[in-house]
Amino acid sequence: MRILVTGAAGMIGRKLVQRLLEDEALGGRALEALVLHDVVRPEADSPMVTALEGDLSAPGAAEALVAHRPDVIVHLAGVVSGEAEADFDKGYRVNLDGTRALLDAVRQAGLHPRVVFASSEAVFGGPFPDVIPDDFAPVPLTSYGGQKLMGEILVNDLSRRGMIDGVSIRFPTICVRPGKPNRAASGFFSGIIREPLVGLPAVLPVPRGVVHTMASPRAAVGFVLHAATMDTGPLGGRRAVIPPGVAVSVGEEIEALRRVGGERAVALIEERPDPAVWAIVQTWAKAFEARRGRELGFVAEDSFDEILRVHIEDELGGRVPVAEG
Amino acid sequence: MRILVTGAAGMIGRKLVQRLLEDEALGGRALEALVLHDVVRPEADSPMVTALEGDLSAPGAAEALVAHRPDVIVHLAGVVSGEAEADFDKGYRVNLDGTRALLDAVRQAGLHPRVVFASSEAVFGGPFPDVIPDDFAPVPLTSYGGQKLMGEILVNDLSRRGMIDGVSIRFPTICVRPGKPNRAASGFFSGIIREPLVGLPAVLPVPRGVVHTMASPRAAVGFVLHAATMDTGPLGGRRAVIPPGVAVSVGEEIEALRRVGGERAVALIEERPDPAVWAIVQTWAKAFEARRGRELGFVAEDSFDEILRVHIEDELGGRVPVAEG
Ligand SMILES: NC(=O)c1ccc[n+]([C@@H]2O[C@H](COP(=O)([O-])OP(=O)(O)OC[C@H]3O[C@@H](n4cnc5c(N)ncnc54)[C@H](O)[C@@H]3O)[C@@H](O)[C@H]2O)c1
Ligand SMILES: NC(=O)c1ccc[n+]([C@@H]2O[C@H](COP(=O)([O-])OP(=O)(O)OC[C@H]3O[C@@H](n4cnc5c(N)ncnc54)[C@H](O)[C@@H]3O)[C@@H](O)[C@H]2O)c1
Repeated sequence: MRILVTGAAGMIGRKLVQRLLEDEALGGRALEALVLHDVVRPEADSPMVTALEGDLSAPGAAEALVAHRPDVIVHLAGVVSGEAEADFDKGYRVNLDGTRALLDAVRQAGLHPRVVFASSEAVFGGPFPDVIPDDFAPVPLTSYGGQKLMGEILVNDLSRRGMIDGVSIRFPTICVRPGKPNRAASGFFSGIIREPLVGLPAVLPVPRGVVHTMASPRAAVGFVLHAATMDTGPLGGRRAVIPPGVAVSVGEEIEALRRVGGERAVALIEERPDPAVWAIVQTWAKAFEARRGRELGFVAEDSFDEILRVHIEDELGGRVPVAEG
Repeated sequence: MRILVTGAAGMIGRKLVQRLLEDEALGGRALEALVLHDVVRPEADSPMVTALEGDLSAPGAAEALVAHRPDVIVHLAGVVSGEAEADFDKGYRVNLDGTRALLDAVRQAGLHPRVVFASSEAVFGGPFPDVIPDDFAPVPLTSYGGQKLMGEILVNDLSRRGMIDGVSIRFPTICVRPGKPNRAASGFFSGIIREPLVGLPAVLPVPRGVVHTMASPRAAVGFVLHAATMDTGPLGGRRAVIPPGVAVSVGEEIEALRRVGGERAVALIEERPDPAVWAIVQTWAKAFEARRGRELGFVAEDSFDEILRVHIEDELGGRVPVAEG
């Protein structure tokens, strides 16, 4: 089994690579080669890994990757929502042209790989019902959402034509995001948990009533592994799937934080309204039915407490520093 | 008022140009310049017209058009469904890259024109309800439909950002299409009327029970003129509109033909099933609610008899040759 991961130095990419190297297999087939690509050189210490650095949208870049003849491609490379909104050209170049270059290279090479495409719930735009059904019409209200939807259309079309066997995952917000804050407008959903748990201050730029759907990084890796190995027959022409997630308000996040980190943790959150972030967040959906995703075998957490527990296990070695201090 | 029409040598383009030159105005403003573009040199005999020939997706082509600083752009250029399905590269190059090149050139030039984009009901893919509501989720099942949907996403995004003021018209099948048959898989809907009316044979490749939504070329021009002049405020972030049309079965088309052309006309239709055409036609929707389109002021015919009457008036000088013979 030969696997190519784009955006492999990113948050989901790193966790996916770690998991693949631990499992040494995917879907019952032994791992032979793992080709990693990112603008930032991906790090991985294994003889199975080829780590490549570059811009996926640059001429020839996608062809060079596809020359490794992957059986599975996990396409995670992308510019996040805030950046795609701030930089029109960059968003389209990376998110649309990069995706198209990759799929074109696959087609030209005559490979027929499984392709897992990291789409987003940002393909949807309001007005929304409280719970979004699986067949809700996607009308993006950000450039990022539009670029992801265009990627989905390509994945559908090439799959229908038998050029690839694709699955697009409409990721919910992945939370608690480890590491430094990134430029995603959704960053605070993780920041208000991650920072206080280790005794650092965090800013909350939106009201506590904001409801949003989340899944852990561990669940995100699970989505990718499932999409890479599932029977795609039941998808028909509709390759984009809404996986399950936990719909939770910011206030409920804070209560879950209080249960593990106490008042000391909660006091580290400073409410400082940011109209720019608020404007973007208001265009997002609250909750999803995700019945089809569940039926197709995608699995996520059931509560925000569980998401918090996963974070403490995977990132903090089971400890809660702020509660110990 | 300066107007640019791409695909101006096409069926809708020619009728639109004729109408604009007759009206000498658009939305109450006098016509100053009409820039026509197509791969086939557009013909128009007026000092107001600049006729240009070329491939819209070729480097520099879009910039050269936009240099004429249009107030309104009607973007009709495109490769039709059958051809986009048969030639993957050409479909994406013209329908996606051509549209993107045009919009990019507009953006770079800092113009903020009204842009009318010729989308299609082919953005929808089944399974369908009998009557498709306005908020039905578009999942194209042809490359052409996907390319049109990607164009809509661009029009939405650039409109939201204030770079253009766009309207995408999800055209139903335009019938009766004058002139020679083209490579659209929908060609027979017109062929079985157009040819028999003048005493020529026509082939029907699908069963008579097939229901499809149609509007006349005159109505299509009306859609474009309305989209070019309407108040776009009520569209919000949803710039794609389903205009009204007549949902009619092939059998009903034939009965309408019988009423004006008699048995002699109907006998000229030869039923010769074509599985390739049938396969494409089965992916199409039957009928549309089109309530939003009506409320937004788009107007079409109410019956197929009316569509037939428009054809006889506009194309046959009010005569029915087969009935006279
Ligand atoms: N994390 C989330 O909450 C979330 C939600 C919805 C969708 N997604 C999507 O999932 C994917 C992975 O998410 P993530 O959280 O790991 O994001 P991330 O930002 O951590 O990783 C994306 C990676 O793509 C790389 N990249 C950017 N431009 C590139 C280019 N031109 N060529 C090659 N690589 C490039 C970046 O360097 C980065 O390492 C992204 O496409 C993202 O849009 C993520
Ligand atoms: N007529 C219909 O039933 C119908 C239905 C839905 C959508 N549409 C869309 O409406 C538009 C106009 O329809 P039409 O019936 O007049 O189509 P048409 O095929 O008669 O006209 C399209 C024109 O685009 C031109 N063209 C093709 N490639 C080009 C390129 N690379 N550069 C410049 N010009 C190019 C063609 O030469 C042609 O004259 C098309 O985009 C079509 O997809 C039409």
